[in-house]
Amino acid sequence: MQKGIATYILTANCPSQVGTVDVVTRFLFEFDFYITELNSFDDVLSQRFFIRAVFRRENNGALEREAFEAAFSKRAEKFGMEWELTPSDYKPSVVIMVSKYDHCINDLLYRYRTGGLAVDIKAVISNHPDLKPLADWHKIPYHHFPITAETKPQQEQLVQAVLDSVDCELLVLARYMQVLSNEMCARWSGRAINIHHSLLPGFKGAKPYHQAYAKGVKLVGATAHYVSDELDEGPIITQEMSMVDHTHYPDDLAKKGMDIESLTLARAVQYHIEKRIFMYNNKTIVFERS
Amino acid sequence: MQKGIATYILTANCPSQVGTVDVVTRFLFEFDFYITELNSFDDVLSQRFFIRAVFRRENNGALEREAFEAAFSKRAEKFGMEWELTPSDYKPSVVIMVSKYDHCINDLLYRYRTGGLAVDIKAVISNHPDLKPLADWHKIPYHHFPITAETKPQQEQLVQAVLDSVDCELLVLARYMQVLSNEMCARWSGRAINIHHSLLPGFKGAKPYHQAYAKGVKLVGATAHYVSDELDEGPIITQEMSMVDHTHYPDDLAKKGMDIESLTLARAVQYHIEKRIFMYNNKTIVFERS
Amino acid sequence: MQKGIATYILTANCPSQVGTVDVVTRFLFEFDFYITELNSFDDVLSQRFFIRAVFRRENNGALEREAFEAAFSKRAEKFGMEWELTPSDYKPSVVIMVSKYDHCINDLLYRYRTGGLAVDIKAVISNHPDLKPLADWHKIPYHHFPITAETKPQQEQLVQAVLDSVDCELLVLARYMQVLSNEMCARWSGRAINIHHSLLPGFKGAKPYHQAYAKGVKLVGATAHYVSDELDEGPIITQEMSMVDHTHYPDDLAKKGMDIESLTLARAVQYHIEKRIFMYNNKTIVFERS
Amino acid sequence: MQKGIATYILTANCPSQVGTVDVVTRFLFEFDFYITELNSFDDVLSQRFFIRAVFRRENNGALEREAFEAAFSKRAEKFGMEWELTPSDYKPSVVIMVSKYDHCINDLLYRYRTGGLAVDIKAVISNHPDLKPLADWHKIPYHHFPITAETKPQQEQLVQAVLDSVDCELLVLARYMQVLSNEMCARWSGRAINIHHSLLPGFKGAKPYHQAYAKGVKLVGATAHYVSDELDEGPIITQEMSMVDHTHYPDDLAKKGMDIESLTLARAVQYHIEKRIFMYNNKTIVFERS
Repeated sequence: MQKGIATYILTANCPSQVGTVDVVTRFLFEFDFYITELNSFDDVLSQRFFIRAVFRRENNGALEREAFEAAFSKRAEKFGMEWELTPSDYKPSVVIMVSKYDHCINDLLYRYRTGGLAVDIKAVISNHPDLKPLADWHKIPYHHFPITAETKPQQEQLVQAVLDSVDCELLVLARYMQVLSNEMCARWSGRAINIHHSLLPGFKGAKPYHQAYAKGVKLVGATAHYVSDELDEGPIITQEMSMVDHTHYPDDLAKKGMDIESLTLARAVQYHIEKRIFMYNNKTIVFERS
Repeated sequence: MQKGIATYILTANCPSQVGTVDVVTRFLFEFDFYITELNSFDDVLSQRFFIRAVFRRENNGALEREAFEAAFSKRAEKFGMEWELTPSDYKPSVVIMVSKYDHCINDLLYRYRTGGLAVDIKAVISNHPDLKPLADWHKIPYHHFPITAETKPQQEQLVQAVLDSVDCELLVLARYMQVLSNEMCARWSGRAINIHHSLLPGFKGAKPYHQAYAKGVKLVGATAHYVSDELDEGPIITQEMSMVDHTHYPDDLAKKGMDIESLTLARAVQYHIEKRIFMYNNKTIVFERS
Repeated sequence: MQKGIATYILTANCPSQVGTVDVVTRFLFEFDFYITELNSFDDVLSQRFFIRAVFRRENNGALEREAFEAAFSKRAEKFGMEWELTPSDYKPSVVIMVSKYDHCINDLLYRYRTGGLAVDIKAVISNHPDLKPLADWHKIPYHHFPITAETKPQQEQLVQAVLDSVDCELLVLARYMQVLSNEMCARWSGRAINIHHSLLPGFKGAKPYHQAYAKGVKLVGATAHYVSDELDEGPIITQEMSMVDHTHYPDDLAKKGMDIESLTLARAVQYHIEKRIFMYNNKTIVFERS
Repeated sequence: MQKGIATYILTANCPSQVGTVDVVTRFLFEFDFYITELNSFDDVLSQRFFIRAVFRRENNGALEREAFEAAFSKRAEKFGMEWELTPSDYKPSVVIMVSKYDHCINDLLYRYRTGGLAVDIKAVISNHPDLKPLADWHKIPYHHFPITAETKPQQEQLVQAVLDSVDCELLVLARYMQVLSNEMCARWSGRAINIHHSLLPGFKGAKPYHQAYAKGVKLVGATAHYVSDELDEGPIITQEMSMVDHTHYPDDLAKKGMDIESLTLARAVQYHIEKRIFMYNNKTIVFERS
């Protein structure tokens, strides 16, 4: 993307039918937009169409959002199209939830701090006080909300209150180690990303590195996925792995896996904010960039 | 791609300008085609636009090639567009050139024999007789044309005669180990793929594994590229690598590299016949599939 | 390894205790052997010791096997050591079992034919006639033993008879697609390698690529493991994976996975014949070579 | 490694000859040490032997360093052996040099802070003031020594004074972007690790990502190596790479490469402090752990 030029991302999806590409590309052409990047995919099995276009106004003029939306709505409606327009420099409000492990949040905060990840991190929420100094140094409010089996509903109310207060758009569970309630999962469907330290659907639940050790696997991995009400079963966004050998006891696997977890979660967040991901049928379409 | 349904691939490129996407997508829409896969890229630095669309006739009707070409030509002309229409089940005529190493050709022939690679291999040409039995078993004519520094022009005439006689569309140098003449390179520009056993531009020329050993590198690789008149400098299509350690003497590196070479060359040929590659400015745009 | 010099591999394992390394290394020293490669590992959790030494006689003299074995036995006995001496150029008798898929066997036969894999392939056994021409071309006897649920015991008798007749030392299931009986598994424990087309323990059993597609995973893999009487639960030898994206339907995953399966199986066989693998506690210790 | 038990690492190398392994392993046995991990390699081409043993006193008793060294010296001397004994929990004094890029130092400091990397970081030295806050937060002294072509000798004196004052044992150039003088290189030979943002020997010198872009490569990489007096030509310790495509302009390559650079440098430092690396003939032997 070139600096200093306003570019936009249009993402849309609808049932497969003739004209799905054209309704987008013709519109952009008629409204004098120049498309710099375009990807579409038609899922033959689910009969659904997905498209992502990056574009800018010719002569780098401004886009009048209301006019754009009104005009495109009319056309998209006929196709039963769900769509979204996003300025490519838009920084969504993000809240990070953590427990005690800090490798993922440390990585995210580094990218945030140095501009590598275009997000506006509004708060860190944890059930432990340990990572407050890290948040403090990044000048991000830190909320310590302890949790027990009994206090979970109340704790989640506190969490939700913070999310509301900052108009949170993306919730990132950076090794939060707690299972969200079904209500919370439903409310944040498609807007909450979790990192699980295994190659899902393998080694779901607790202590995946111990499970991996017991099975004697020769590679370990990490999975970033949207949260769903079934534990570790939400739509997978991206996965990564690392070779291991017999010299790795469970603690070694956990240590080795940290780098992979951090990279995988950061990549998923990057894809999310770049509007590269579509969630459908408990799976994802991701217009990746290798 | 679904079986039994005629699909087509349209590839095009032209100078960057407003309407480049639309001229393709609107045309396909107006002619009642359904786009199943679409990728475009606009190279900001070279100011050039590239697009690849996979599509089929709605109701799976036939495409009338002449009418399509005549109609699309008119529109494309205004954009200075170079373009090509290819039935997605088209199998190009391929000739493979080899020397004595057989790992790459063995891999290509396996994919050809089992339908994994949609090519029509018309002939194998070699400066050695060694691999004739392999070609024989696959029922492919084998031409043994020895070569010396003195006989190179004559040998290349023999090679060209074979290529002509089978209407060769893609020439694959599967570890041919000989440098083609500048004339040959120019004639086959963009239609001849070579595999080099290093991560170009590193370790050009002879004995790259020995060069790699001398430098003590910790990974070796392979590069598939279009042939150009500058040795090992043609546009890179795809590259792959493999970690190595100090226990690998040059012979071990060579052995280990064989798998990578075979996979890299096969992938490049696959991309070529699927029309995923554009050659421009001595580089390539490749609409890959991860 | 240097050519023309007789080298040997000594592998051993025993309960952890002081002197385990020394009993091996001192012996080799006293008997005038030169160690070119040495790896040992002490598993703290299972309290077991594993060692692999590659060595040659100083001045490249011969090793007198009986004397060596008699002398080493005495010392090893005190440590409760299981051990094995193998000339490094020893080629074990191998039988390959297949069904209809030929990518793994094609790869193995290529390595066998070109000397890349130091095995002596004595026979191919299949429940289908399809791959006979491939075996024929490599001049390897092909046994077609059809199988049904009812005839399984009889079929396995035929199989075992072939294995006996060639003194089979390693049985390779190169996508055999049939489950061996418990008796067969027990008899060939530690001497039969299977390739499964998933990252075990994920997607066990039938149609792993369809399972993977249903879950929307972003990488597929293959696992080579020793056969055990629990389906797809035997000790894992090595695993490999490949990134995939949403454009891969189950057939595409299967096609993409083929390269990984072939490479993974070949690597496992290589490790086995180089005596790099120890099986213990339903896991493996593998002194790999990156 | 088990916690709470004193373990040691003995590394040694000498000319190839019979008895090299035995002189180490017998000694350890006689002195009642238990070897938990052992690797040796004999380089046939350079005729040199390398060994690394990890061990602990049986019954977890203490090692008397002076006695050990005196006794082992006598034996090692006969073999012309260079050797080193290191407690495995020893944390070497490290100084990090940086310029303005902070991804590598951020990663190193994270590992240092959380105990992932067993080093004692004594100081950060930079030719720019930018990264002082980062060092401050980690409570590490930050020295800002500007440099110009003219003041280089004086600046290096200041640098050396800091290194002396903290008894620096390992100097890490974490994207320092300045070329050290030959004197400095010589003085720190084998004790200074640099990260270069390319797959050396490819793209040496300035702006490797721009060089990579110009060549249209399909993968970028990073190389950690010991500093030598020839720019970017020092012994390679470890390398890593990442696939890229045509959508990556030089800035994108640089951004993408950051993760690889950080991981590669951290891995090299880890190997160094775990005494896994031997430098010889401008190359390295690395007893890696996959």
